[in-house]
Amino acid sequence: MQSLTKILVLHGPNLNLLGKREPEIYGRLTLSEINQQLKNRALEFGVEIKFLQSNFEGELVQAIQNAPENFDFILLNAAALTHYSIALRDAIAAIEIPVIEIHLSNIFSREDFRHKSVIAPVCLGSISGFGIDSYISALEIAVRKLRRLNCEK
Amino acid sequence: MQSLTKILVLHGPNLNLLGKREPEIYGRLTLSEINQQLKNRALEFGVEIKFLQSNFEGELVQAIQNAPENFDFILLNAAALTHYSIALRDAIAAIEIPVIEIHLSNIFSREDFRHKSVIAPVCLGSISGFGIDSYISALEIAVRKLRRLNCEK
Amino acid sequence: MQSLTKILVLHGPNLNLLGKREPEIYGRLTLSEINQQLKNRALEFGVEIKFLQSNFEGELVQAIQNAPENFDFILLNAAALTHYSIALRDAIAAIEIPVIEIHLSNIFSREDFRHKSVIAPVCLGSISGFGIDSYISALEIAVRKLRRLNCEK
Amino acid sequence: MQSLTKILVLHGPNLNLLGKREPEIYGRLTLSEINQQLKNRALEFGVEIKFLQSNFEGELVQAIQNAPENFDFILLNAAALTHYSIALRDAIAAIEIPVIEIHLSNIFSREDFRHKSVIAPVCLGSISGFGIDSYISALEIAVRKLRRLNCEK
Amino acid sequence: MQSLTKILVLHGPNLNLLGKREPEIYGRLTLSEINQQLKNRALEFGVEIKFLQSNFEGELVQAIQNAPENFDFILLNAAALTHYSIALRDAIAAIEIPVIEIHLSNIFSREDFRHKSVIAPVCLGSISGFGIDSYISALEIAVRKLRRLNCEK
Amino acid sequence: MQSLTKILVLHGPNLNLLGKREPEIYGRLTLSEINQQLKNRALEFGVEIKFLQSNFEGELVQAIQNAPENFDFILLNAAALTHYSIALRDAIAAIEIPVIEIHLSNIFSREDFRHKSVIAPVCLGSISGFGIDSYISALEIAVRKLRRLNCEK
Amino acid sequence: MQSLTKILVLHGPNLNLLGKREPEIYGRLTLSEINQQLKNRALEFGVEIKFLQSNFEGELVQAIQNAPENFDFILLNAAALTHYSIALRDAIAAIEIPVIEIHLSNIFSREDFRHKSVIAPVCLGSISGFGIDSYISALEIAVRKLRRLNCEK
Amino acid sequence: MQSLTKILVLHGPNLNLLGKREPEIYGRLTLSEINQQLKNRALEFGVEIKFLQSNFEGELVQAIQNAPENFDFILLNAAALTHYSIALRDAIAAIEIPVIEIHLSNIFSREDFRHKSVIAPVCLGSISGFGIDSYISALEIAVRKLRRLNCEK
Amino acid sequence: MQSLTKILVLHGPNLNLLGKREPEIYGRLTLSEINQQLKNRALEFGVEIKFLQSNFEGELVQAIQNAPENFDFILLNAAALTHYSIALRDAIAAIEIPVIEIHLSNIFSREDFRHKSVIAPVCLGSISGFGIDSYISALEIAVRKLRRLNCEK
Amino acid sequence: MQSLTKILVLHGPNLNLLGKREPEIYGRLTLSEINQQLKNRALEFGVEIKFLQSNFEGELVQAIQNAPENFDFILLNAAALTHYSIALRDAIAAIEIPVIEIHLSNIFSREDFRHKSVIAPVCLGSISGFGIDSYISALEIAVRKLRRLNCEK
Amino acid sequence: MQSLTKILVLHGPNLNLLGKREPEIYGRLTLSEINQQLKNRALEFGVEIKFLQSNFEGELVQAIQNAPENFDFILLNAAALTHYSIALRDAIAAIEIPVIEIHLSNIFSREDFRHKSVIAPVCLGSISGFGIDSYISALEIAVRKLRRLNCEK
Amino acid sequence: MQSLTKILVLHGPNLNLLGKREPEIYGRLTLSEINQQLKNRALEFGVEIKFLQSNFEGELVQAIQNAPENFDFILLNAAALTHYSIALRDAIAAIEIPVIEIHLSNIFSREDFRHKSVIAPVCLGSISGFGIDSYISALEIAVRKLRRLNCEK
Repeated sequence: MQSLTKILVLHGPNLNLLGKREPEIYGRLTLSEINQQLKNRALEFGVEIKFLQSNFEGELVQAIQNAPENFDFILLNAAALTHYSIALRDAIAAIEIPVIEIHLSNIFSREDFRHKSVIAPVCLGSISGFGIDSYISALEIAVRKLRRLNCEK
Repeated sequence: MQSLTKILVLHGPNLNLLGKREPEIYGRLTLSEINQQLKNRALEFGVEIKFLQSNFEGELVQAIQNAPENFDFILLNAAALTHYSIALRDAIAAIEIPVIEIHLSNIFSREDFRHKSVIAPVCLGSISGFGIDSYISALEIAVRKLRRLNCEK
Repeated sequence: MQSLTKILVLHGPNLNLLGKREPEIYGRLTLSEINQQLKNRALEFGVEIKFLQSNFEGELVQAIQNAPENFDFILLNAAALTHYSIALRDAIAAIEIPVIEIHLSNIFSREDFRHKSVIAPVCLGSISGFGIDSYISALEIAVRKLRRLNCEK
Repeated sequence: MQSLTKILVLHGPNLNLLGKREPEIYGRLTLSEINQQLKNRALEFGVEIKFLQSNFEGELVQAIQNAPENFDFILLNAAALTHYSIALRDAIAAIEIPVIEIHLSNIFSREDFRHKSVIAPVCLGSISGFGIDSYISALEIAVRKLRRLNCEK
Repeated sequence: MQSLTKILVLHGPNLNLLGKREPEIYGRLTLSEINQQLKNRALEFGVEIKFLQSNFEGELVQAIQNAPENFDFILLNAAALTHYSIALRDAIAAIEIPVIEIHLSNIFSREDFRHKSVIAPVCLGSISGFGIDSYISALEIAVRKLRRLNCEK
Repeated sequence: MQSLTKILVLHGPNLNLLGKREPEIYGRLTLSEINQQLKNRALEFGVEIKFLQSNFEGELVQAIQNAPENFDFILLNAAALTHYSIALRDAIAAIEIPVIEIHLSNIFSREDFRHKSVIAPVCLGSISGFGIDSYISALEIAVRKLRRLNCEK
Repeated sequence: MQSLTKILVLHGPNLNLLGKREPEIYGRLTLSEINQQLKNRALEFGVEIKFLQSNFEGELVQAIQNAPENFDFILLNAAALTHYSIALRDAIAAIEIPVIEIHLSNIFSREDFRHKSVIAPVCLGSISGFGIDSYISALEIAVRKLRRLNCEK
Repeated sequence: MQSLTKILVLHGPNLNLLGKREPEIYGRLTLSEINQQLKNRALEFGVEIKFLQSNFEGELVQAIQNAPENFDFILLNAAALTHYSIALRDAIAAIEIPVIEIHLSNIFSREDFRHKSVIAPVCLGSISGFGIDSYISALEIAVRKLRRLNCEK
Repeated sequence: MQSLTKILVLHGPNLNLLGKREPEIYGRLTLSEINQQLKNRALEFGVEIKFLQSNFEGELVQAIQNAPENFDFILLNAAALTHYSIALRDAIAAIEIPVIEIHLSNIFSREDFRHKSVIAPVCLGSISGFGIDSYISALEIAVRKLRRLNCEK
Repeated sequence: MQSLTKILVLHGPNLNLLGKREPEIYGRLTLSEINQQLKNRALEFGVEIKFLQSNFEGELVQAIQNAPENFDFILLNAAALTHYSIALRDAIAAIEIPVIEIHLSNIFSREDFRHKSVIAPVCLGSISGFGIDSYISALEIAVRKLRRLNCEK
Repeated sequence: MQSLTKILVLHGPNLNLLGKREPEIYGRLTLSEINQQLKNRALEFGVEIKFLQSNFEGELVQAIQNAPENFDFILLNAAALTHYSIALRDAIAAIEIPVIEIHLSNIFSREDFRHKSVIAPVCLGSISGFGIDSYISALEIAVRKLRRLNCEK
Repeated sequence: MQSLTKILVLHGPNLNLLGKREPEIYGRLTLSEINQQLKNRALEFGVEIKFLQSNFEGELVQAIQNAPENFDFILLNAAALTHYSIALRDAIAAIEIPVIEIHLSNIFSREDFRHKSVIAPVCLGSISGFGIDSYISALEIAVRKLRRLNCEK
């Protein structure tokens, strides 16, 4: 299974600002540093990993739609879109590869309108509140799931 | 009136996936098959018809804004945007040609958050639940309305 | 299939007043004119059609219960009952022939309490806002559905 | 401070239609006439001013993100996005230059869903209901704030 | 104007039980005693008055629909239907003669679900809480309104 | 007490369809079979029992109003009317003989709008979810209550 | 009883403007014309009547508190205070003479926040929607109630 | 089937106080008198019955968890826990033997917070309002269900 | 137009405390300093300006009622009354000169109950969040509106 | 510290009626008897105490604003204003001396609208339900707090 | 009366942590220090006092149930159980000795979910926000109430 | 750091049933198998780990309270208590070591009442939906956090 496994990491609106601003909420790592750490971890697993950040809902919808052709798993930090984008939700529901919802901060200890996720019900599961570890653990879970699946074949 | 009548059909996010996935909800027809059937029906009426699918809210807003210059009627399946895009609503309210709201599935027998349409109040009317017939009937209604209008002139 | 297909059109409370009052909302056609136009259209299709208007919820419930013995399809404009009659809803859910929900006006651009339909979730689909065309299109959709069904046999 | 002060004016979806349609709500001035008057006023203050109108949420998010590099203040009429775009809100919260929320019409005397602004809590303040004067006053407030700031240095 | 003025008094479900039961809420007068007192008062005014009590929503809807042919004014105690019968509301809105809403008891000092009247917004006005005086005053108001109208002719 | 005790069983809208349709929810017994079993059980107790099914709210209201003249107890399955008929509620509150609320299915494990009963607060008690046993137990409870009452005399 | 009966009429905030402004809602009569007509009607009944208009909640509270020493009945148009003044409500609940709630316009066909009256539950009853007739009828009801009371003594 | 059938009766918090206090709501029978009557009725049926009262949510959860090893049916009066104990609900959902919800008083005619049962949706059905007869009938229903089941084997 | 233009500035409850307390929310300027700055600015425009601060709702209502006789425009900071005083709202709606709603702080980034303004829907527009600039800009907008009006004459 | 400590007791609308009316809710003591008992208790502590009752919100707001100049502590029974006067709340928040919220009756066992206090969040604490003991205990708590404070100096 | 009076003080979940953690909310006193001060104060009154802290809802329910046999009054700080334990509420309602609700902190200035007390409506009254003085005052009120009661005997 | 790090795993109500029932929701692993896998993973990290399952809220509260003395981190699957146990929440808030919220299933795709977690806002973060991987990842995150912390020392 090794080199064949491919994982897509999607970052939603404003995540390109990571590390530069509001480090008290989101931490001091930049998005490229996060991506680099994920790449290193993926390398250890012998897994391919790709990244996309977009401030456009439509671009993320298309990336999700196209993902099944090239990827086995999606790690998605939908950022603000988490709370209202039914279009993202429909895209996730329409594809068959699993999606893990990720948040750097604990969305439940922030403003009320961030407590509700419209995408959570169609994701495999959610991880929030652990900074970069939210991403790393999501990656590890994805790899474990895929390995178990391969074993069962 | 014949060849002068022009109708624009707008398809919202994720409708490019039609027929390929979740056929138990959306049916087995692809978007291009739907477009083809609409084209055939338009041909019978001697009416011009154009199509646009987009996953970008902004692109649909612009298409609606520009429509009055080239079209007499809009048939709009806003998909997920139906439920939250006030920008689409404002675009519809801003133009003077009529818009018909279309849904392939019966949005009232699905999840709660799909029961509310923010665009319905500014559309001429709504048709939902009949698969491709939702589109076909919308087209027929549009043609009838325009013919009556022409007769009154 | 022709002469065997039978369609029942049900008109709810106050629709007997059509055309005589509030034409700015409901149009100038009387109920019998609407019925006549539906009859003409049915004739073109070679389809039988029957009509019932009632101001009594119980009478409509009974008509829906008895319909399957004599009809293949119901076109239902439940008028005010749309918004609260769970008895109508239960009758529709209890029968096996399909029901289309019809409204002359766009119920979503009127008062808040008219935005909610308790029967929509158990109907095949809904058409609202097109005046008599709401009925005509519902008839056409019904005929098309039945023809496709017959072809599949 | 004079020529160094730079202000960015952002216009949200459908505002490119200004003046052409629905003048009873939005007034008869076109967007370019508004921009011209703002330019004139800016000139009197010796302040640079730039304009961007977009129907794309993502494009506005990026403009807000990039603004701190080139501008001292943002004047934002988010139009329909005011009411649901948490992505805009997050972008505003992420930058350090102040943003003023602007509306041509009094959003509180219109439909219920326009009474709620998801961006208001993260803006410096709001001005609504005065037509072009909403923009002009916002510009004047911005200039005064910046002058006081400069004096304090 | 005298003998030509005709007033219809409609009593809703369960009002046939008046006087016999729950006198602590509804008083000790029977419905026919109330009708008799109204008749006497009408006689003093030289006004014709007719009465109908029904436990059937449909029967009341029809009585309201037919009223304009024979009556100048409706006095309506819709009883329990007050709180949910949109069909009654639509019938009232459809006719052109005025309707006064009447309640024997003060509906605002009873259970929560009795605080809301779906017919109040389409009635001329409401009187509640005065026992038989609610009816008598409604009759007097009706006569005064009609007299003023006649004077203006 | 024996032959003097008389019990009225009222069945609301759509219950005439029992057994014929949706047996997975309502069971396979027809209404007349249910009535027969109740009759047998009543016979064992030496109790008279009568039945009425109606799709008309008004007819049920009248039956409840008239019941005290001929009956000692009412067993009421109000079906869909359970959820909105305040007229039924008022009729129950107006009479002095006790009423037991009955449901074949567990209304609390069905749709949200079926969780609320407007008649429950004025009934002696409620039994729901046991199919025909809901009726049988209600009958047994009624007989026991009446026997205890008779003993106390 | 005649000359001993005394009635207090209280007019709430902004009612001093009556007749001068917004006649389409409140009619063309000024407050002093209304008072004059009430005085005339009181004279016919041989009843004393006094008037107070105030824009101060506290002044109305005191007038209600002091009323029982000098008056037998209060007619109260609380105007805007109707909807939020629990202090008025408590004053009414604290005294033993009855209070009738009056509104010139039909508060149920106006804005939502005017549908709720915090004083209605502690008043004897309410009359709304009949212009000056709301006051006249309230006066007549008060006189009738007092006469009946006197007869019973 | 006789002696093999075993039924567990669970009484929730504060039910050990029965008969001693608030007899106007809960009746004059003590819990042990209720248990004795149930025992007698069970004896008539040839059925074993056991009782547990606990003020500890955890103890009831465990009793439900362990019940399937020793019992065929649970009769549960969860008392106050009815309204919020999701732990009880989860325990009921986790086992395969049926549970009947019981209440001595009619919970729907008491305080608002007692109208909602979080356990009702996972029980077979509910009986409330009949005092000790709620328990007796639940026992009879349980025995009947088990007998029918045995017959089907 | 110059010296004829007259503007009334109304300050609501607790604003007399400005500058002395809670300067982190309301700034360090006292009310008389704010009034002085407004006076200076009015002088530059050749406009008369008057001020009233009151902790009494009734006093503000009367000031608004009387304003049209002496003033062309009202600038109103209703403070706490903003959120519940329907009496203020009615006074504003009753007069024909325009009113601008002003807040020193951004009410949308404070407690939830401060997000709702009952007066906003009847004001010309609102300015909040800019400290004294909220007042200054409101004054400037008022002057501009009046000048344009004068030009049109 | 003795004679220097000064406490202000504020009584809101309708409390001047105490003892005379509704003694079953508010007890039989008059306001002056309560004040006398508080005076006696204050005397024992060697503390000065002053009283103000007002039916005017504005007068209470001013008393709170001025209190810090002459008093060390406020005991406030805001009566009906408790539930809606944000102006009182703002006055309390604006001053630095502590305020204790007092209620004679248990507001939580009365009507729903009395359960919410808009002033509670800005008071030091609340005491309700103990009749005059609510006042006495508040006085004792105030004295203790001030003594501890003095000790710490 | 002296030595016969017995008071039970109940402390709910987590109060055993008092003084050790979060002193900025709950103060620096430990639970045993609070108990000691209450003991001292009780001694002055010649009153017996007992204490129980439990993290088990069931244990507190039993303590309340058993209290009437040994105690005249309960002082209850239910801590987190305040907000949802209907079992505690039922226990309080079931006994006849009075219960005072106590909170160290002002629950109304903390999180929203702490604003609602399900036990308040069945307690004699509530004291919150005064730290240990909440307990001390509750004790004093209890003693005064009991003394008055004894005097009346 | 190795052998010194100690982690406590807490399992809430009904989790002792894991693997035996409802495997389609919770999987086929028993609780002891989950514990064993966590032990193995902890061994690899050189970390001590302890386990406690309880159906008693109070026992879990105490375990959390005592944890800081013996543990560095808590992994908590609160099961049903997640949704209402404010006592658990208060215990978590009272201690200083971090807690991770864990769920086997995706609580957001189950019943509505499971969407709300009252403990999430006071936990470090949450992981739900990944079966045993939810626990494993939580363990890994805990170890990583502690290692980073140790490095920083």
